Amino acid sequence: MKRVNSNPYPQTWGPPTTYATRTDKIIIVMVGLPARGKSYIARRLSQYISFFYGAPCRVFNVGDYRRRSAGSVVQDASFFDPNNEEALRMRHEASETALSELVDWMKSIEPKRLDTGEDCYISGDFGAVAFFDATNTSAERRKWIIDKVLPTGAKVIFLESICRDEQIITRNIIASKVGVKDYVGVDPEAAVRDFRERIEKYERVYEEIHEKELSWIKLIDAGREIAMNNIRGFLPSKIAQFLMNLHMTRTPFYLSRHGQSEYNRLGKIGGDSLLTEMGEEYAIKLGEWASTNICHDAEGSIVPARLWTSSLQRTIRTARHVPHPVITGPGAETDWIQMRPKVFRNIDEIFAGTCDGMTYEEIGELYPDEAASRKADKFAYRYPRGESYIDLIARLEPIALEMERQREPLLIVGHQAIHRVLYGYLMGFPREKCIKVEIPLNTVIKITPTEAGCEEERFTLIQEPPNVNLDPASH
Amino acid sequence: MKRVNSNPYPQTWGPPTTYATRTDKIIIVMVGLPARGKSYIARRLSQYISFFYGAPCRVFNVGDYRRRSAGSVVQDASFFDPNNEEALRMRHEASETALSELVDWMKSIEPKRLDTGEDCYISGDFGAVAFFDATNTSAERRKWIIDKVLPTGAKVIFLESICRDEQIITRNIIASKVGVKDYVGVDPEAAVRDFRERIEKYERVYEEIHEKELSWIKLIDAGREIAMNNIRGFLPSKIAQFLMNLHMTRTPFYLSRHGQSEYNRLGKIGGDSLLTEMGEEYAIKLGEWASTNICHDAEGSIVPARLWTSSLQRTIRTARHVPHPVITGPGAETDWIQMRPKVFRNIDEIFAGTCDGMTYEEIGELYPDEAASRKADKFAYRYPRGESYIDLIARLEPIALEMERQREPLLIVGHQAIHRVLYGYLMGFPREKCIKVEIPLNTVIKITPTEAGCEEERFTLIQEPPNVNLDPASH
Repeated sequence: MKRVNSNPYPQTWGPPTTYATRTDKIIIVMVGLPARGKSYIARRLSQYISFFYGAPCRVFNVGDYRRRSAGSVVQDASFFDPNNEEALRMRHEASETALSELVDWMKSIEPKRLDTGEDCYISGDFGAVAFFDATNTSAERRKWIIDKVLPTGAKVIFLESICRDEQIITRNIIASKVGVKDYVGVDPEAAVRDFRERIEKYERVYEEIHEKELSWIKLIDAGREIAMNNIRGFLPSKIAQFLMNLHMTRTPFYLSRHGQSEYNRLGKIGGDSLLTEMGEEYAIKLGEWASTNICHDAEGSIVPARLWTSSLQRTIRTARHVPHPVITGPGAETDWIQMRPKVFRNIDEIFAGTCDGMTYEEIGELYPDEAASRKADKFAYRYPRGESYIDLIARLEPIALEMERQREPLLIVGHQAIHRVLYGYLMGFPREKCIKVEIPLNTVIKITPTEAGCEEERFTLIQEPPNVNLDPASH
Repeated sequence: MKRVNSNPYPQTWGPPTTYATRTDKIIIVMVGLPARGKSYIARRLSQYISFFYGAPCRVFNVGDYRRRSAGSVVQDASFFDPNNEEALRMRHEASETALSELVDWMKSIEPKRLDTGEDCYISGDFGAVAFFDATNTSAERRKWIIDKVLPTGAKVIFLESICRDEQIITRNIIASKVGVKDYVGVDPEAAVRDFRERIEKYERVYEEIHEKELSWIKLIDAGREIAMNNIRGFLPSKIAQFLMNLHMTRTPFYLSRHGQSEYNRLGKIGGDSLLTEMGEEYAIKLGEWASTNICHDAEGSIVPARLWTSSLQRTIRTARHVPHPVITGPGAETDWIQMRPKVFRNIDEIFAGTCDGMTYEEIGELYPDEAASRKADKFAYRYPRGESYIDLIARLEPIALEMERQREPLLIVGHQAIHRVLYGYLMGFPREKCIKVEIPLNTVIKITPTEAGCEEERFTLIQEPPNVNLDPASH
C-alpha cells in the first residue's frame, strides 16, 4: 500500500491532538480574607488546567514561605497585627521571595517554536499558569504585584473569594487551618478563636477589587454568584468555566468498573459483551454495598446520591441492583428513589478501533507495529481508527466538570481506562501518569476531596481466588 | 482479518462523536431595555449552540409576533406607553402567543432513548434551547414567564443586557432598528427620536434582576463585565463561556485558502506540500490585497489586524507576503507592524489518516468501502485513522470562540474543510450543511456580522484560466 505523508510534525498516530489553542501565560493572584477557600481553589484549578490542557501550573503559597522563614517565631493573631512591625517585615519578605520565584518560574517557560525555518511565524502553542496564593487584600498590594510581574509578559487575573456566610467560614477554618501548619499542637477551640482574630486584623485593611481596567473573577458565597471583568481568551474562559462548576461541598466520588464481562474472561478488549457469572455476582454485591454505604447513612436514613454508567451493557447491568427508579414505559419516568441514574457515552471505554474485540495476542500477531507503538508510548498511542488516552482526556473533560458540580455522593460504574483518567485527575497526577493507575475488577474506589488533596479508600467486594486472572486483557 | 464489534450503537466509523454531555433543556429569557443588543445576542448564541453542540435551538421574538398581529396599527412610541390600554392588550397578546408556541416547541423535543431494553436507564443525551426574546423588564412579568414554562420541565436562565454607555446604545439603535421593521419608510432621525422615547417608557417600569434563587447572567456594557448567579451544568457553562467572548464590535473576518499546492495540482489530499508557481503568485497577490484592503484604510492609515494560519507549510507560505513582523532570532520577536500573526494547529486541514497523500481515485481502488461510506454520509464519515467533519467541528470550537473575541479584522489563511466549517458557523448554517460550502482557491471571502446575520463578499484574486481545474481533489 502506497503511503505518503510528508508532514514534518510528529503525527505518528493521527492528527495533532493538542486542540486547545494554548496561547496564554497567566498569573492568577488570589484575593480574600483567610478561610475563604483560596488555597483549595488554587490547588483544584491548577490540577484541572494541567491535567486537561497540559499547561504547566504552579502554586506559590506565601504562607508556606512565611512559615519557612519565620521558623520558630510564634505566629498567632498578634503576628498579623498591622502594627506589629517586625512581623510585618517578615511577612513582606515572604511575599517578596514567593513573588520573585513566581516571576523566575514564569520567565523560564519558553514558547515552543515551529521548525519550519525562515518563514515561520511565532507559534502561540504554549501556556502556563502561576498562582500567587496570599490574601492580597489591599489595592496597594495588588498594584505592587502588577508591577513586579510585568517582566513576565503574563496576563494577570485576580481571583477574589468573598464569603459572608458564617457557617461556610467556620467550616473552612476547621477544614483548613485548625491543627494544620500554623496550629500544630494548639487546642482547636483556642486555634479557631485565634484564627478569627487574625481574620479581623485583615478585615481592617480589606478593599474589594472593583477596578474596571483590571481582569478579575469574584466568587461570592462559595460560588453561588460569580462576577467577572475583562475575562477573555481560551484559558481564562476555561478557568471561569471550571470555577462556575467548583463548589466547597466535599462529597465523595465512588469509582467502580463493571463486573467481569465475557470479554474480560476471554482476554478480548472493547466490545459490548454481557457479564459472566462472577460479574453478575459483583453486580449484586455492588447493589448491597451501595445501599448500605452510599444510599443510606449509619442511621439508615436515605442519602440522595447519583449513579452514572457508560452506554455499554456491562456497566448498565452492573449498576442495575443499585437502588434506582424503575421505568415503566416511554415517557413514564417515575421519581427517583435513591440514586439518580444517568447514562453518559463519554464514559464508554477507550475505543480500540480496528482492534476492538481482539486479544492482545491477536493484535501482536496481526499488527506488530501497532503493538510496538503502543508499548513505546501508551499515553499518546491511538488505536487504528480508535482512540488514545489523550483523546480520552479530551472527551472526559466535560465529565470532570459535571463531576465537580455534583453536591451529592456520586457512583460511576465505568471502565478501566476511563477510571484511570478520572482517578488521575482527582488525585492530582500529571496526565501522563494516569496510564499506570491500578483499577482492578470487583473493587469500589472511594475518593474524598479534602483541603490538602484527595483521600482514597478501596473496598474489594469479591475476593479474587488465588491464581485466577479475572481480566487477562488488563495490561 | 477477524473483526468483532457487537456494540449496538451505530459507530460505523469510530467511537461516539457526540462527546458533549447534552442533558439540558434550557429556556433563555432575555431581559433589557430596547437597543441593548438582545436579539443579536440571542441569534448568535443560538447559532453557536446548534452548530457546535447539535442541540436544536429556536428564537421566539415577541416583536415579530406583535408586528404580525398589530398589522397596520401605527407602532410609534405612544404604542409603548404603559397607559395605552389597547396597545397594552395587543402587546400582551403577542407575548402570550410567542410564549405558548415556545412551550409547545419545547415539549415536542423528546429525549433520545438507548435501545438496550429493560435495563436501560433514561439517557441524558438530549438538549434544546429556546430563547424568549422581549424586554421582560419587570419582576412581575418574569414571574409570569416562569409559571407559564413550568410544564416544559426546562431550566430557565435570564440573560440581562445592561448598558449605560450612550455611544453603544445609539450605535445599537442605528444598527438594529432604524429603517428596519418598525420604521419602514420613516425618516431616520425621527425614528431614532421616537425610539428613544420608546426606551424611556420602558425605563419607568424597569427592575434589574437580582433574585438569588433564580439563574441569571448579566452582561454589563456589552460584555466588559459579566455577573452570573446559579449557572451550572454543561450547556449553561458553554453559554456563559460564549457570552464571555462575544462582543458588539462588528469587525469582518476574511477567509482564504492557501495558494495552489503541489498536492492540489496532483489531485492528492492532505500532506504538507509546498506551493506551485500559481500558488506563489496567489501569495503575492494576497499580500498586496490584504495591504490595501485590510491593513490600510482608504486614507492609507494603518489598521491593526490579525493573521492566522494553520501549522502547514502551504498556509504559512501563502501568508508570508501579508505585512507582518520579521523575526530576527529565537526570542527576538519584534513588535508587530501591521497584522499580528499566529499559527494554530486547530486550523490544520482535516486529517485523512491512512488516506493522507492519496488521490480520490487511489482511495476508490484501495478502499472501495471507505469511498462508499464517505459518499453515503460525508458529514459523519471519518477517514481510517483520521478525522470526520464532526471531529473538525469539535476541534474548531475553541477557534470559533477565539474568533468571537477578536476586536480587529482577522484574516485566516486555512484549508477547504476548515473554512467550510467556519463559514457554515458564521453564516448560521445547520452543521450538516457545511460540507456543501464552496471554498474555491485564489479567493478571499469577507464575512461581516450584522444585526440580521452575516454578510459575505468574495474577491477572486487570480482568474482561473478556462478549462483548468486548479484543485482536482476538491470534491
